[in-house]
Amino acid sequence: MGVTDFFDPDGIAVIGASKTPGKLGNDAMTNIRTYDGEVYPVNPSSEGSVYGYEFVDSVHDTDADLALCCVPSPVVPEVLEECGEAGVGAAVIFAGGFAEVDEDGREREDEIVRIGDEYDMTILGPNTAGYCIPHLDLYGSFVPEIRDVETGNVALLAQSGGVGITSAFQLDREEYGVSAMFGLGNRANTGFVELIPVLDDDPRTDAIALHIEGTEDVDAFLEACREAETPIVAYKAGSEELSDFVASHTGAPNQSRERYEEALTGESVVFVSSVTELIDASRAIADTPTPAGRNVGLVTAQAGPGIILADDINERGAEFPDLEDETQERVDDLLQGITYTENPVDTGRPLPEFGQVIDAVARDDNVDVVIVYEIYEDSLGYPVEELETLADDLEKPILFTVAGPESFEKERLQMEAAGIPTFQAPERGANAVAALIDSIPDDA
Amino acid sequence: MGVTDFFDPDGIAVIGASKTPGKLGNDAMTNIRTYDGEVYPVNPSSEGSVYGYEFVDSVHDTDADLALCCVPSPVVPEVLEECGEAGVGAAVIFAGGFAEVDEDGREREDEIVRIGDEYDMTILGPNTAGYCIPHLDLYGSFVPEIRDVETGNVALLAQSGGVGITSAFQLDREEYGVSAMFGLGNRANTGFVELIPVLDDDPRTDAIALHIEGTEDVDAFLEACREAETPIVAYKAGSEELSDFVASHTGAPNQSRERYEEALTGESVVFVSSVTELIDASRAIADTPTPAGRNVGLVTAQAGPGIILADDINERGAEFPDLEDETQERVDDLLQGITYTENPVDTGRPLPEFGQVIDAVARDDNVDVVIVYEIYEDSLGYPVEELETLADDLEKPILFTVAGPESFEKERLQMEAAGIPTFQAPERGANAVAALIDSIPDDA
Repeated sequence: MGVTDFFDPDGIAVIGASKTPGKLGNDAMTNIRTYDGEVYPVNPSSEGSVYGYEFVDSVHDTDADLALCCVPSPVVPEVLEECGEAGVGAAVIFAGGFAEVDEDGREREDEIVRIGDEYDMTILGPNTAGYCIPHLDLYGSFVPEIRDVETGNVALLAQSGGVGITSAFQLDREEYGVSAMFGLGNRANTGFVELIPVLDDDPRTDAIALHIEGTEDVDAFLEACREAETPIVAYKAGSEELSDFVASHTGAPNQSRERYEEALTGESVVFVSSVTELIDASRAIADTPTPAGRNVGLVTAQAGPGIILADDINERGAEFPDLEDETQERVDDLLQGITYTENPVDTGRPLPEFGQVIDAVARDDNVDVVIVYEIYEDSLGYPVEELETLADDLEKPILFTVAGPESFEKERLQMEAAGIPTFQAPERGANAVAALIDSIPDDA
Repeated sequence: MGVTDFFDPDGIAVIGASKTPGKLGNDAMTNIRTYDGEVYPVNPSSEGSVYGYEFVDSVHDTDADLALCCVPSPVVPEVLEECGEAGVGAAVIFAGGFAEVDEDGREREDEIVRIGDEYDMTILGPNTAGYCIPHLDLYGSFVPEIRDVETGNVALLAQSGGVGITSAFQLDREEYGVSAMFGLGNRANTGFVELIPVLDDDPRTDAIALHIEGTEDVDAFLEACREAETPIVAYKAGSEELSDFVASHTGAPNQSRERYEEALTGESVVFVSSVTELIDASRAIADTPTPAGRNVGLVTAQAGPGIILADDINERGAEFPDLEDETQERVDDLLQGITYTENPVDTGRPLPEFGQVIDAVARDDNVDVVIVYEIYEDSLGYPVEELETLADDLEKPILFTVAGPESFEKERLQMEAAGIPTFQAPERGANAVAALIDSIPDDA
């Protein structure tokens, strides 16, 4: 199978390419032109060129090993057969109108599976928004704005292309990126089981974020998750109550969240329950070491948000250990006359000593995960330098929950660059801590 | 009492004002200078001026009716006594070191309560980050960046000043504002019971967002909530497990969330469980009419995120009614050959007809609340015009859940301006719908 052709195509055929803005075959062209390789717009009824690429009549006139099929569903089998004959190893089928709609569609999908088998061709879709690999400038999707999404170290593998796109955009708006994003759609012959190992082997991927609606072979899915060495964060959407609607989407079977969660208990697979949590948990896990235990050190510059964090973290099964005597003495020295110097440590407001307090708590051997909360004030800024040193010195996760006006953005991104993931609301920081703790496998 | 002096001071004394950047008395001056009224920096050991305002030696040398006290806790009683003598009606005390720390602090707080009584003076704090009323350019806080926060129609009333500031900043970053933000702190003589009626009477406030840690007189609090005509959204933070930490913060008593929720069941008070939900629920409720019932019409341009929305909304107790025959015919006409035209309606991808589909569903008498999901594509944009018409024509909430790169921002804000609240992740839209449904009082 040509799964690797998704990552490293020598030539890309855009079948059904168009000059008309707004058409799928034009949208796909606007994206693919960023790719540094041969691109062939294929359309027998078009002449001339689109975005500087000459139209060709047939995929046979190309050296493409990847095809983006922008044609409607009735034409797909014929187009795919030609792709197979022409030696294409991987194809993306955007069109809907297959197994998710009716019996005719189901037959059409069976037909493309058969063609895939015959020609040993990997098929992404049908019924998908496509995929992207930003570090290759490779955007195989009809959503033009997906080109804004930059490179990061989280791979998104979404059963719904829409959820993949949505998650990628949210990462983009918050100044992160993806190592890859795949929208699976109907999974004719390429699904979680085929792509998890590929992303697991990808050196740019430090965490794999899954969006699952339902899978036919649950055991094979679970096995792929267990075999992966890269940490996995999973969001199982689509409850049993809404089975009609779910089935109509990707033909996914009707399965409960619990079925997946229970089967992977004790593994390093973390389950979450929203898109934002999927993103936040994946970022935290991708950017920091697995914690050695469930003991959390919390340092807050403002007690109110600190209480929210402590409460949410506590509810999710973490512990707030006593600090070592030596740490407690150091913190008490730094915070003379201050409210609450035990863990959670509350400095009352941001202080010049704030970075030193974090340093003391982070270096405490009783603490496995550090989370900090601070509202930004220009005159003090964030303790970026101290955090950079800590991230270098320590093999434990340090997270920073921020609040402030847009002017905090520069220092927030400096912390990110140092390996300190940041979170923009108290509950988001708490959820990230919970995810890190959930990521500790039972046999650790 | 001079609660109204917070809203309309003729003169403001900043006691402990300073020329030194980074000092509390300087930070407070940087904020208050935006106010179009008399400002008096009071400091007997400073000469000359700060930001163009001449220092005075004593509050007796001013016509202030509002005082911002930027002095450390031991000096506060003396300063407050002078304020009382000088005819100040309202004072903000930023310093901590009162009832939240120890017995000495408790005595000091009793003393300031006594002074407040003696001079009939309203005291915000102590131990607060202050307050702001953006439409008056009045920022009575030491957090300088709070000046970025603009005018909106949600009032934030937070027991923790830090949570008030955090929430205001999050609103600001997402391009919203507040009608007012009050951080209560220790609530010496001004708390929820005093401020809820004032905000209820404020014509600029369409929803009141509360952050609660714990109150001494729960019955009085509940009564204030029941009496308010403005809808209230409440976030009770601080669980019983963390009572030590909570008590050390504002001296708040140890109370469960359930105690508040159960007492207000059936009232138009909505309870939420995070800062983001507090903001989103308040915005939805402030900007749209109370729904007539629990029936939700969902229109999505992408099935995957639509399933997430449908699932989350369903779990929160809403219904997805059948559409009226006439509506269903209109939708079927618009979406020939499309996946799932029943409610939830899935158009498969954004289409030129998307606005008409929303129009059909929104006008259906079976539908009490409309929620839309669409990933932005430049070539189609959002159906802003259709939504503007619907918001004018209909007395029902219409919410729009968006995803896209930053380029969607312009049309997102156009929808906001038309009275269509927008939400930037599927679960945020779902939570907003749930809040609207929870806001229907039992006697409606």
